[in-house]
Amino acid sequence: MVVDDGPRVPPGQGPIDATLVPRYAGLPTFARLPQNHGEAADVGILGVPFDAGVSYRPGARFGPAHVRESSRLLRGFNPEQGVEPFSSQRVVDLGDLGVNPFNIDEAIDQIEIGARQAMDRVQYLVTIGGDHTIALPVLRAMHAKHGPIAVVHFDAHLDTWDTYFGQPYTHGTPFLRAAEEGLLANGCNMHVGIRGPLYSSADLPRDRGAGFSLATSLDVDAMGWQGIVEMIQERTSGAPVYCSIDIDVLDPAFAPGTGTPEAGGLTSRELLACIRGLRSVNLVGVDVVEVAPAYDHAQITGVAAAHVIYEAISTWSPTASTT
Amino acid sequence: MVVDDGPRVPPGQGPIDATLVPRYAGLPTFARLPQNHGEAADVGILGVPFDAGVSYRPGARFGPAHVRESSRLLRGFNPEQGVEPFSSQRVVDLGDLGVNPFNIDEAIDQIEIGARQAMDRVQYLVTIGGDHTIALPVLRAMHAKHGPIAVVHFDAHLDTWDTYFGQPYTHGTPFLRAAEEGLLANGCNMHVGIRGPLYSSADLPRDRGAGFSLATSLDVDAMGWQGIVEMIQERTSGAPVYCSIDIDVLDPAFAPGTGTPEAGGLTSRELLACIRGLRSVNLVGVDVVEVAPAYDHAQITGVAAAHVIYEAISTWSPTASTT
Amino acid sequence: MVVDDGPRVPPGQGPIDATLVPRYAGLPTFARLPQNHGEAADVGILGVPFDAGVSYRPGARFGPAHVRESSRLLRGFNPEQGVEPFSSQRVVDLGDLGVNPFNIDEAIDQIEIGARQAMDRVQYLVTIGGDHTIALPVLRAMHAKHGPIAVVHFDAHLDTWDTYFGQPYTHGTPFLRAAEEGLLANGCNMHVGIRGPLYSSADLPRDRGAGFSLATSLDVDAMGWQGIVEMIQERTSGAPVYCSIDIDVLDPAFAPGTGTPEAGGLTSRELLACIRGLRSVNLVGVDVVEVAPAYDHAQITGVAAAHVIYEAISTWSPTASTT
Amino acid sequence: MVVDDGPRVPPGQGPIDATLVPRYAGLPTFARLPQNHGEAADVGILGVPFDAGVSYRPGARFGPAHVRESSRLLRGFNPEQGVEPFSSQRVVDLGDLGVNPFNIDEAIDQIEIGARQAMDRVQYLVTIGGDHTIALPVLRAMHAKHGPIAVVHFDAHLDTWDTYFGQPYTHGTPFLRAAEEGLLANGCNMHVGIRGPLYSSADLPRDRGAGFSLATSLDVDAMGWQGIVEMIQERTSGAPVYCSIDIDVLDPAFAPGTGTPEAGGLTSRELLACIRGLRSVNLVGVDVVEVAPAYDHAQITGVAAAHVIYEAISTWSPTASTT
Amino acid sequence: MVVDDGPRVPPGQGPIDATLVPRYAGLPTFARLPQNHGEAADVGILGVPFDAGVSYRPGARFGPAHVRESSRLLRGFNPEQGVEPFSSQRVVDLGDLGVNPFNIDEAIDQIEIGARQAMDRVQYLVTIGGDHTIALPVLRAMHAKHGPIAVVHFDAHLDTWDTYFGQPYTHGTPFLRAAEEGLLANGCNMHVGIRGPLYSSADLPRDRGAGFSLATSLDVDAMGWQGIVEMIQERTSGAPVYCSIDIDVLDPAFAPGTGTPEAGGLTSRELLACIRGLRSVNLVGVDVVEVAPAYDHAQITGVAAAHVIYEAISTWSPTASTT
Amino acid sequence: MVVDDGPRVPPGQGPIDATLVPRYAGLPTFARLPQNHGEAADVGILGVPFDAGVSYRPGARFGPAHVRESSRLLRGFNPEQGVEPFSSQRVVDLGDLGVNPFNIDEAIDQIEIGARQAMDRVQYLVTIGGDHTIALPVLRAMHAKHGPIAVVHFDAHLDTWDTYFGQPYTHGTPFLRAAEEGLLANGCNMHVGIRGPLYSSADLPRDRGAGFSLATSLDVDAMGWQGIVEMIQERTSGAPVYCSIDIDVLDPAFAPGTGTPEAGGLTSRELLACIRGLRSVNLVGVDVVEVAPAYDHAQITGVAAAHVIYEAISTWSPTASTT
Repeated sequence: MVVDDGPRVPPGQGPIDATLVPRYAGLPTFARLPQNHGEAADVGILGVPFDAGVSYRPGARFGPAHVRESSRLLRGFNPEQGVEPFSSQRVVDLGDLGVNPFNIDEAIDQIEIGARQAMDRVQYLVTIGGDHTIALPVLRAMHAKHGPIAVVHFDAHLDTWDTYFGQPYTHGTPFLRAAEEGLLANGCNMHVGIRGPLYSSADLPRDRGAGFSLATSLDVDAMGWQGIVEMIQERTSGAPVYCSIDIDVLDPAFAPGTGTPEAGGLTSRELLACIRGLRSVNLVGVDVVEVAPAYDHAQITGVAAAHVIYEAISTWSPTASTT
Repeated sequence: MVVDDGPRVPPGQGPIDATLVPRYAGLPTFARLPQNHGEAADVGILGVPFDAGVSYRPGARFGPAHVRESSRLLRGFNPEQGVEPFSSQRVVDLGDLGVNPFNIDEAIDQIEIGARQAMDRVQYLVTIGGDHTIALPVLRAMHAKHGPIAVVHFDAHLDTWDTYFGQPYTHGTPFLRAAEEGLLANGCNMHVGIRGPLYSSADLPRDRGAGFSLATSLDVDAMGWQGIVEMIQERTSGAPVYCSIDIDVLDPAFAPGTGTPEAGGLTSRELLACIRGLRSVNLVGVDVVEVAPAYDHAQITGVAAAHVIYEAISTWSPTASTT
Repeated sequence: MVVDDGPRVPPGQGPIDATLVPRYAGLPTFARLPQNHGEAADVGILGVPFDAGVSYRPGARFGPAHVRESSRLLRGFNPEQGVEPFSSQRVVDLGDLGVNPFNIDEAIDQIEIGARQAMDRVQYLVTIGGDHTIALPVLRAMHAKHGPIAVVHFDAHLDTWDTYFGQPYTHGTPFLRAAEEGLLANGCNMHVGIRGPLYSSADLPRDRGAGFSLATSLDVDAMGWQGIVEMIQERTSGAPVYCSIDIDVLDPAFAPGTGTPEAGGLTSRELLACIRGLRSVNLVGVDVVEVAPAYDHAQITGVAAAHVIYEAISTWSPTASTT
Repeated sequence: MVVDDGPRVPPGQGPIDATLVPRYAGLPTFARLPQNHGEAADVGILGVPFDAGVSYRPGARFGPAHVRESSRLLRGFNPEQGVEPFSSQRVVDLGDLGVNPFNIDEAIDQIEIGARQAMDRVQYLVTIGGDHTIALPVLRAMHAKHGPIAVVHFDAHLDTWDTYFGQPYTHGTPFLRAAEEGLLANGCNMHVGIRGPLYSSADLPRDRGAGFSLATSLDVDAMGWQGIVEMIQERTSGAPVYCSIDIDVLDPAFAPGTGTPEAGGLTSRELLACIRGLRSVNLVGVDVVEVAPAYDHAQITGVAAAHVIYEAISTWSPTASTT
Repeated sequence: MVVDDGPRVPPGQGPIDATLVPRYAGLPTFARLPQNHGEAADVGILGVPFDAGVSYRPGARFGPAHVRESSRLLRGFNPEQGVEPFSSQRVVDLGDLGVNPFNIDEAIDQIEIGARQAMDRVQYLVTIGGDHTIALPVLRAMHAKHGPIAVVHFDAHLDTWDTYFGQPYTHGTPFLRAAEEGLLANGCNMHVGIRGPLYSSADLPRDRGAGFSLATSLDVDAMGWQGIVEMIQERTSGAPVYCSIDIDVLDPAFAPGTGTPEAGGLTSRELLACIRGLRSVNLVGVDVVEVAPAYDHAQITGVAAAHVIYEAISTWSPTASTT
Repeated sequence: MVVDDGPRVPPGQGPIDATLVPRYAGLPTFARLPQNHGEAADVGILGVPFDAGVSYRPGARFGPAHVRESSRLLRGFNPEQGVEPFSSQRVVDLGDLGVNPFNIDEAIDQIEIGARQAMDRVQYLVTIGGDHTIALPVLRAMHAKHGPIAVVHFDAHLDTWDTYFGQPYTHGTPFLRAAEEGLLANGCNMHVGIRGPLYSSADLPRDRGAGFSLATSLDVDAMGWQGIVEMIQERTSGAPVYCSIDIDVLDPAFAPGTGTPEAGGLTSRELLACIRGLRSVNLVGVDVVEVAPAYDHAQITGVAAAHVIYEAISTWSPTASTT
């Protein structure tokens, strides 16, 4: 009778059956998937509750817990992609990394080690932030496994700034650092959804120097998600792709629960369609960051983030036959 | 001086005059329309505060009260349709059904009886849920009066599942039950706005078996509301149409106050345009369900639901001449 | 089946039976009592949705609707007073006054006329504000019927200031105006719950000049509600008592939904006990004002206000025999 | 590095070390205690996410998840009782029962079976509701193990009503049913915190007939928690005590997140002190029910509920020596 | 060290450097721009905290404070327009007008005087409301300086009604009054974003009589922002343009914090693009009104309003060279 | 007409006159007091927006802005103390310190320097946090000016822990560090309001070792505020007193907007009374910390914090004569 017991959950695979155990019951692993205790799997979901790199509203340390709690409604068949992501492959919840909240440098090392260990177990890694600082150590681990990485970056902001208060490692700087460290594939990186004011006109050339091209929120409006997906295919051109999704790429109406909101953003329908399009690229890892639950309402943001992860996981699943 | 008194409200017809009595004053009947005490009318609005059929977030039992409270701003002339829905026809608030919250089977019987009684008084019936379970008994009453019904169903979810916990009557099953009971017109039913994960790939053939075709949220994006309206016209092909609107057809940004939110949904502008398009079909009844006020904020959801009802009512109104 | 119909509600008396019709169903009259259409009654409850006299947070115009919606849980037997307030006397909901929101002077006249008309129908009048401006016209009507009135005023603030921006009629001035107009019984008026900063040291002598004595929030803490009730009995000494309750007499924890919150206030348990104590005075009228729903959460404030009114109404009910 | 791994958590006992793994990381078991997979333990915490017995605001089905999430701050030493509740005894999180949300009778059976199974594993059982309906099947299981039970019931309401809508098993009736079934120890049962309106004057004799005495919220105010604890000791007089805590015993200021709020309630300081006092009785089981998270804010209610459980668990722990 | 001190802020120009002083620090002037004490400037931002002209939800009196607080994230380079609005021109925060909240007529005079004084100091004036009543006195001041004005009005509502409660000056009437007073340029005025029910079919001819043409929310959907910008250019045809933006032109999803929400509105991306398009007209003044913070959540509305102002200010800035 | 202009504000002293300029107008300096630009004053209020030392919910970096915004209602005469705190002494708002959010050690140095500079200008310093980490550098500055300091610490928690994650400077450790650095007066320090679980039984002896005595929340309940004030007088025995107030000393009902809430806390009436009692000790400085606005509602917490500061400031004001 107790949720965690019994035979009705297939051992180690797939979510709990919601026609027998209500969705609001049991511990909130992602999509009510099995917890992992070291076994190998195809896809692993790892929480990184860290937000000491935030320059404005903090709170993304509660992001993994909130996205998991908001993922209880996810079901096993993805009709838009025509796949069964949880039964055609082994997807597990890796739990959270225990990261030092008081020391950014130590935290970055801990995250890199944790990501490497996780990637030893699983083929594809999805990380739930935490703030955008975490993308750098994860990219280091991705680079160690896959070589130079094509970053497809959904965000309102460039995140290729240099320093704040003399601090080089923050949520506004991971992609400049990654470029400097040689983690990125040449000519293969791009931003999607950029909008809003920058610090100065020098931000754009610095960003281009870091190897990124740009599709703004207005470009998404003009080209449609189909156009964006084509741009991504061309730009990444076969390189291993890491997709980093700052939830503030969505308009504040679709993602109020975030730290540096910018008006004029994407709809969740646009973002989900773009993520589905990653099916056609060589996707090796994904993060969803900057979900700050204290500013969310009725899980608007959490549900969008959970669904984005669901679509990303689905891209790794072979097409099921449907009648 | 007291709102409920006096000659300034035409006896039994039209809302209270807001240039004399402020909109925040007085009891919240729908659109501040007259309460009905048994007289005949053209259109009746009936609350069905019942949510015992809900599988996730409950609270739609407070839906009728919330939608009424959110309808205080509705005014008498609809410029998009060019009609005066409250003066060209007699529209009344029928109050709420008193339904057993502890026994689904008894509740369904009570709702069917209540809907039949209401339909004896009024030509067109609008019901405010309550959860989607209520569509089944209302469809029974519709069928009793009009014969086989073409259902146009706006929702994120199919609602043609079979059982939960062995229970055949829930908010996820009304349209499969309706099909089984022979209430639906052959080949005339469709869903609009479907999106998000299903339980399994078997859900789609079961749904088709129940007689529904499908326009997803992405279809709405691609075809525009004009395309959807054309599809509805073709699909329903003259049959009496019952339009069932689960408010979660809207994106959570536009309808946070609901029980099973799915990212990637319609905008309120799209939904309102589709509902206006029902002017061109043989609409006989409408419901708006799954408004769960505890999750709403600033009546975002309630205002959308009230306006949807307003557009539906307007489709029954003859065009006014405007200069 | 429809709530507003049928024989199960005794004609014109007592709330709807909640074991048959759920409390969340039907229009929110106060305590689900019958609406009044001009018949005589013992107690009448009148909404006065007016807040143009507010100096800080507005929104009390939605107060009557919110307090009514928050009163759905009230039941028929008051064990603390040992009375059945709705069956031992006829209590009705008089609806709301339609008051000009743009012109304070006209609004005050409208309220006075409305209160006089209401008092022609009912023996005891309870008004739901609205801001504290409304106490002045209601006091005029009380004085017209009962002669000089003893005001027992629960509030964080004195409300005997003179003018703001040259305006003599606001929510901070009703009791100075009432004193100037000779509406108050000499030596019989008092404030309870006063706390927090004043404009200047001249405020206290002006207040005394208007005929008020003072029990601060700290006095309530020190003397207990029993001591306060004794003070009220002594101070009012048989005069007809009008009890004016600004909900901000409660601490913001107990009444966040108000316009000028002051820390350090009463608990709801203290306030309810004090109101019960009015059973021993010659109470002729009550108001509850300054409920601003946009700042409330989960009806904390609304439920407190509704219960305060319930206790006041109960003081007019003869003791029932209980076994 | 991953939270769920590694040696720093003692196998099967005590919470995760928060000076090494942040409190916001990892799955929210109660107090971050170990999950149980069938081993024996001293104290077990069992979630019962069920709210189909609710007459007003639903949502307590999310109560177990919310109280666990709100328990992340609990630490290992209880200075008020002078005990270390998690290291002096083995306390485990038993997960949630998977209970049918659509059928009250089946749910009650499932809860009874689940409680019996849980009590086979653990000496003391704490259940987190869910609505108050769940107290009946848990009392059945308690009676099966311990014989007649002395119920100490903290609540705003009596919960000894007979039926709603003809339904005998709801959140307003568990203690009348328990009395009828002979589960209760004669003359040993009491309510604490009762307040607010009843249905009729017949409610009190019916309640006495069910074997309960009464300490109202005003009694708590007058006697202090010390007086209440003495009453409890006298009344229960050595019988095995089951303490059932409806969170609405707290004032809405201290527990907004509940289904049937009543003004005038206890403070959390009073309630916690009363629960500590249960150290002196023969406590065998505890429930905390009616936490409805959709109405909570900033975990005010959740934190109070978690702390109440913490104090209850602590009463079973032998006094530690402190220097 | 103290924010208000020191040399790092250029004297009297540009925002505080956020890489040295965090954005959450310091007093919330608009965009953290310098406060003005009477010096001349190119652009001035003036708060008008007044909402006594509101017919439904009040609270826009807190609008200026909320929009300023929501503007802390604005940065110095606008890539969409390719300009540096704060360094290429002198932009200052003029503070708030102290306006009588109790007397509409006096308030309107005070606002006109204040706007005239402000326009003596600055070339371009941006006002933050406050309710829409304030547009009339600002238009008087605009007319005094520039002659007949072309009004481009973004709103869900026409705001050319005549009176409420006999009151001619309210938030629903400014543009009819402006037309009657001869402030408007013939044939040059238009509404954008209109939608939702009107009072009667007579509203449209009255509006046309006041000199306005109409682009509805559905027109924006059909024509795109490019089409709307072309319409604005044609319609205003070189006349001095005053752009009045009622934030409720946005859908309630994008602007919940407002007083008279209407479903079916613009997205923030559409509105921002339209405002950028004003670069091609002779813009002389802007207002953003009807932001009611008590209904906002996580500054969704405030951030949108602040960004709208930012784009308007940017239209006055010469294009910067970017590489 | 513009708020910041004109003669009606006495130059450099006292709040703006709210009978002429509404309280919601103008920049939110504390209590609408004048901004300071380096002149000497009696009392200075300094914001320290820093929260990188937080172990659970962050967000106190927005504390200074929120407390100032919540202080708009404070008025000039304090009747409880019988003083006019703003006219009998010169009280100024010193603005915020610009502190590095990414580096705790650097931030602590910046705060110490900032506090020293501020204390060069003002006799008494009030700091608004920010998290409790800030108390250490402020205490260093206090010690530099006054010698050994008696700390009176209102909090739910001891804050004398040693390290988290190896980090010695956090919001849980300032008073152990202060003791180690020799900043505290021997035998003169105490905590008030302590409650809830500790890490281990070793916490209490470590705390005593740091020189603190203890009055728990239950002690406040038992002794009343009068007893606590006597304890403080005895304990501090003439030493210069620094009062450090963590807002979580209040119950979560009275202060939801904080980072580590504990049930069972003080009421705001109790806390305010205790602070008033500091009039009888040699108070030299005060901080109010851990206000986390993202978790506040309707400024419940902000208003309490502002009032606490008001009472502290008032203790430095000579008694005014009142008639």
